[in-house]
Amino acid sequence: MPDTMKCLAFVDAGTVQLIDREIPKAGPGEAVVRSTASLICTSDVHTVAGVLPVPYGRLLGHESVGVVHEVGEGVTRAKVGDRVAVNAVTPDGTCDNCQRGLSSQCGGPLGGYRFTVQKDGNLAEYFHVNDADYNLAPIPEGLADEVAVYACDMLSTGFAGAQNAHIPLGGTVAVFAQGAVGLSATIGAKLLGAGLIITVEGIPNRAALSKQFGADIVIDPADGNVAEQIVDITHGGVDSAVEALGSQATWEGCLYATKEGGTISNVGYHGEGGPTLTIPLDAFGLGMAGKRITTDLCPGGRDRMERIMRLLATGKVDPTPMTTHRVGIGDAEAAFEMMRTKSDNVVKPLITF
Amino acid sequence: MPDTMKCLAFVDAGTVQLIDREIPKAGPGEAVVRSTASLICTSDVHTVAGVLPVPYGRLLGHESVGVVHEVGEGVTRAKVGDRVAVNAVTPDGTCDNCQRGLSSQCGGPLGGYRFTVQKDGNLAEYFHVNDADYNLAPIPEGLADEVAVYACDMLSTGFAGAQNAHIPLGGTVAVFAQGAVGLSATIGAKLLGAGLIITVEGIPNRAALSKQFGADIVIDPADGNVAEQIVDITHGGVDSAVEALGSQATWEGCLYATKEGGTISNVGYHGEGGPTLTIPLDAFGLGMAGKRITTDLCPGGRDRMERIMRLLATGKVDPTPMTTHRVGIGDAEAAFEMMRTKSDNVVKPLITF
Amino acid sequence: MPDTMKCLAFVDAGTVQLIDREIPKAGPGEAVVRSTASLICTSDVHTVAGVLPVPYGRLLGHESVGVVHEVGEGVTRAKVGDRVAVNAVTPDGTCDNCQRGLSSQCGGPLGGYRFTVQKDGNLAEYFHVNDADYNLAPIPEGLADEVAVYACDMLSTGFAGAQNAHIPLGGTVAVFAQGAVGLSATIGAKLLGAGLIITVEGIPNRAALSKQFGADIVIDPADGNVAEQIVDITHGGVDSAVEALGSQATWEGCLYATKEGGTISNVGYHGEGGPTLTIPLDAFGLGMAGKRITTDLCPGGRDRMERIMRLLATGKVDPTPMTTHRVGIGDAEAAFEMMRTKSDNVVKPLITF
Amino acid sequence: MPDTMKCLAFVDAGTVQLIDREIPKAGPGEAVVRSTASLICTSDVHTVAGVLPVPYGRLLGHESVGVVHEVGEGVTRAKVGDRVAVNAVTPDGTCDNCQRGLSSQCGGPLGGYRFTVQKDGNLAEYFHVNDADYNLAPIPEGLADEVAVYACDMLSTGFAGAQNAHIPLGGTVAVFAQGAVGLSATIGAKLLGAGLIITVEGIPNRAALSKQFGADIVIDPADGNVAEQIVDITHGGVDSAVEALGSQATWEGCLYATKEGGTISNVGYHGEGGPTLTIPLDAFGLGMAGKRITTDLCPGGRDRMERIMRLLATGKVDPTPMTTHRVGIGDAEAAFEMMRTKSDNVVKPLITF
Repeated sequence: MPDTMKCLAFVDAGTVQLIDREIPKAGPGEAVVRSTASLICTSDVHTVAGVLPVPYGRLLGHESVGVVHEVGEGVTRAKVGDRVAVNAVTPDGTCDNCQRGLSSQCGGPLGGYRFTVQKDGNLAEYFHVNDADYNLAPIPEGLADEVAVYACDMLSTGFAGAQNAHIPLGGTVAVFAQGAVGLSATIGAKLLGAGLIITVEGIPNRAALSKQFGADIVIDPADGNVAEQIVDITHGGVDSAVEALGSQATWEGCLYATKEGGTISNVGYHGEGGPTLTIPLDAFGLGMAGKRITTDLCPGGRDRMERIMRLLATGKVDPTPMTTHRVGIGDAEAAFEMMRTKSDNVVKPLITF
Repeated sequence: MPDTMKCLAFVDAGTVQLIDREIPKAGPGEAVVRSTASLICTSDVHTVAGVLPVPYGRLLGHESVGVVHEVGEGVTRAKVGDRVAVNAVTPDGTCDNCQRGLSSQCGGPLGGYRFTVQKDGNLAEYFHVNDADYNLAPIPEGLADEVAVYACDMLSTGFAGAQNAHIPLGGTVAVFAQGAVGLSATIGAKLLGAGLIITVEGIPNRAALSKQFGADIVIDPADGNVAEQIVDITHGGVDSAVEALGSQATWEGCLYATKEGGTISNVGYHGEGGPTLTIPLDAFGLGMAGKRITTDLCPGGRDRMERIMRLLATGKVDPTPMTTHRVGIGDAEAAFEMMRTKSDNVVKPLITF
Repeated sequence: MPDTMKCLAFVDAGTVQLIDREIPKAGPGEAVVRSTASLICTSDVHTVAGVLPVPYGRLLGHESVGVVHEVGEGVTRAKVGDRVAVNAVTPDGTCDNCQRGLSSQCGGPLGGYRFTVQKDGNLAEYFHVNDADYNLAPIPEGLADEVAVYACDMLSTGFAGAQNAHIPLGGTVAVFAQGAVGLSATIGAKLLGAGLIITVEGIPNRAALSKQFGADIVIDPADGNVAEQIVDITHGGVDSAVEALGSQATWEGCLYATKEGGTISNVGYHGEGGPTLTIPLDAFGLGMAGKRITTDLCPGGRDRMERIMRLLATGKVDPTPMTTHRVGIGDAEAAFEMMRTKSDNVVKPLITF
Repeated sequence: MPDTMKCLAFVDAGTVQLIDREIPKAGPGEAVVRSTASLICTSDVHTVAGVLPVPYGRLLGHESVGVVHEVGEGVTRAKVGDRVAVNAVTPDGTCDNCQRGLSSQCGGPLGGYRFTVQKDGNLAEYFHVNDADYNLAPIPEGLADEVAVYACDMLSTGFAGAQNAHIPLGGTVAVFAQGAVGLSATIGAKLLGAGLIITVEGIPNRAALSKQFGADIVIDPADGNVAEQIVDITHGGVDSAVEALGSQATWEGCLYATKEGGTISNVGYHGEGGPTLTIPLDAFGLGMAGKRITTDLCPGGRDRMERIMRLLATGKVDPTPMTTHRVGIGDAEAAFEMMRTKSDNVVKPLITF
């Protein structure tokens, strides 16, 4: 049994490095998982860019699945050797917000997001899991790890975007931006009964994936005012819009594209722009048009993971076309750089171990 | 322009007959539609069997689409010549229940169900529509009448069954009986994000359709206790069950097959058995297991029709494999008899004009 | 029977005048009501200030109750002589939004708001009601007109503010501003099971009314940062906040005062500030703190009026302490001026006929 | 520090006895509480009557508050000496059902109900609490223990009855039976915005309490068909009914008294009648009248307790008129006997220590 592991660390401002680190230990109620598949997330790019106050040396990553390597005292559900997926958000299940079902806000705003932000991430050969009984989700037999890994963040976040959009059965929805979260929201919109799905994306391979995942119409933002086009197509605006980028432009687009009484669901991360978001009051009916804005961070916990993986296991959802690249952990630095620069038409690079 | 039309009437106890009748007129706020496609419903069979207090001479049918033939004074939305679909339930939009969104219960219990029950049905070359602005739904360009006609009752009812089942995203659902409503509930369960769909059906062609529409597993009730099999497969019961037959056996099956905290959604018509339904208290946790029972009749109105037809127009739902037979209105008597006896593996006979 | 009536008109920029006007007539499906009690609303002040594009000559007012004077052809529910209340919002019950339960957005954004905006208002001895069967709500026997009149806008809007705030049973809520709508939201918060109600108001008589209507704590905005005080009192923020003023300051206050996963419910009219509202991203968790923003205009229709009046008739709600002044219609100009200048501690002036 | 404690035990078929028992110990994540106030529940009477399979020697009771006496390893929220309330239902917070918010069904049907059923109850000087961080709710300063103790079961259950009844704002509700749970449901119906509250109770002091807690009308079942009276009073039936007894008669009454589209919420325990409940199909619209049946057992957990106690601390709810008797733990046998025979107009006997 090795003592050390390879892992991707945020070592200095703007710098990531593949390093060796001691394999973590499992305290009471905790577990350690040996990774089999990971995905790199744009959130890690934000972290390395200095947007979040993360100390140097912290490991990156929050989308990994694997095999239980060690369980701490009191863990009753998972056993060493079990194949498990762990959500990017690992709630404790006990705090006020968890008791109300707000797992992503465990302990405080965005508090369920522990990997990298509060402790080491899991772009690593081994990783530590708090509250193991709450968070270790068994991967169904027959479901490949490299498929299951999409449940950790992309599908859980994208589906939350679609769920919080309150799409009426057969209703109309617009998803702004078709990166991996936006594509997942498109899958979610189709999964939850949308009648017409319009997506907004200018990069050709993402637009193609969007169609493949269920978009009826893909609008290239280079082709003029997006919201106006959506209002035209839908004769008045969509029932629901999903903001999956995190910019003032897409935010405004959602507000203008959504009809009175509709819902704007935000899953875009707005940490890279200025200190405020602006709501044009004409798009907001002066605060009286019945529009609703919802927001979320990836909802976590075992039960949600199990339900998402059931959709994968029964073949109702197949996110793997998002896997544009595959590399071993030894090449994680290069994969991260590709993600940072969004080069080579990358959507999601899969890391294998 | 003819004065009379061919139509299928309930002429005497147990007897239907193709008759000639005057074409109806449109009063203020009303419309008359010339039919292009109709479906025969098992509800009509119930009616003819004498289950509902319907006077002899009443026309049968409530699943028809067509072209607007006449509009009464004050009708503003539809124009003569428009292709339209009309829900089996035609609410007035004004009563207390309509104001609360309970369109199927317009004016009282089951009160939105007007065709045949309160006035002539629409298995006829022409039919009358009350509250035309509320009820005439334009058929989208490119959507064939014989597809749109499924929105009138089958999909609206089956989808209500799935909606009222409160299936969690990726959750498990069982649909008991795979007649046309049950099959539509299966389509609805898939459409609304179920992770595992188990259906119960013994007739081979219906079982095959069930698979085609999204069932992961079809259980033949001849193969032993259905609820026990469902509990085994799901390790404790489904999140949601849909009763799509209307019998004590399927009702009980739903209660036993559903896990604590789950939902039993009834769209089966229980008018053919005895005067009561029985709830086994062990299946009901003595009234404390958090189980919920929901019921509904086909929800009506234009908006719902438009949303369901959007799903058809964008190809997300294709109910046409249910059309096992096609006949002209001249052969409607024979089609009705086939429906009554469920012969020749009939699911839905389509009537053309 | 007189031919003309006294009524309050918006005659020129910034000017209102008591004028004589012909009594309106009821067309098909419509009604005319003889007023018995009216309230003047701050919305009328906004209108006269030129915020909304209303033509000169238009009558003001949208909060009136009275006796049915005339019913048009086809009206079936109300009869001449019935005592009725009419919501400020008079939906047609038929449009897409009405069919979905969004009565305030009838026909388009804010489209249910017809009085003054789309046709004459009802600060008049007689007033016209569209879609009478949908909108005329009988006043229960024993309920005084001057109590019932609060259901027309103040309680319907304030209760919507509380409903849309999604206050958990026993949860914490802050209501920003205690004008008549804010006070009504306070009544609504108490009515809907809030555990702790904090209100924000600096005017002493309004603060006193707030306590009387259920506020546990009233914060004077002159006493320092309101949101910080609320976060302190609640150890982290309220579950729900209601914006009942319509300013950037109160809007921001709501965002900062609400904890992660909470709801900000806007019923304030934001037409008097600049063209945008600003969301501070730290108060919004960068779009990921699970905060939800809801908005609404007064929901209308008979059913809602009947339910609100039931609360008045059974004594569960008594809004009459808001009636700070009473005048005859002859003194409506002075009452309007008082409302415009918010002089003499006015909350709501009641107009009698 | 004593080693033993006084406690009320179920010692043999039909027999309870005040016995001495060792004070329990707190394992990891657990706590022991020294009781200060307890209530006796009719559920204990059911248990002693042999309805549930509880072994002889098991301690009774599940409604107790007190002071933390010992905390096990890993407990972080509560400290020795804290005043705390513990819900009758003590979920683990981790199981599938808890992760979905179904705390009462922790681990399986009715599985959150641990006291007496799965381990010793808490009619005892000291009692053990599993999953202490999830279940120990601090009692707010200024809230007396003998008030807080009503949050443990009566208010949590009664409020669940009202919440699951989905009472529309200003809607009509009927609560069948006004024992302590029914009275609490009446408090809950008022708390959640019911417009008209009709209760059903024949015992005079309970009828009087019902009025005091918010009932507008109390119907004595001795005065003829209750459901018919309710349908008459409400011109068609209530929006919502709460079954708070657990008998075929009240169950049927709820079904008949509720209008189409309404909700029947069951919190009555149906373990004392036969093996089935019967639904009259005419009251159920043949399964198509849009009626909904919901069921629940007391929802548990710290967050709910804190919210209910907030309502008590701010004076919005005062359940103490239900305390008809007070005795020391030494007289618990007599108090239990009084509860068993429902003698001396008992509603709830409070046990002090």
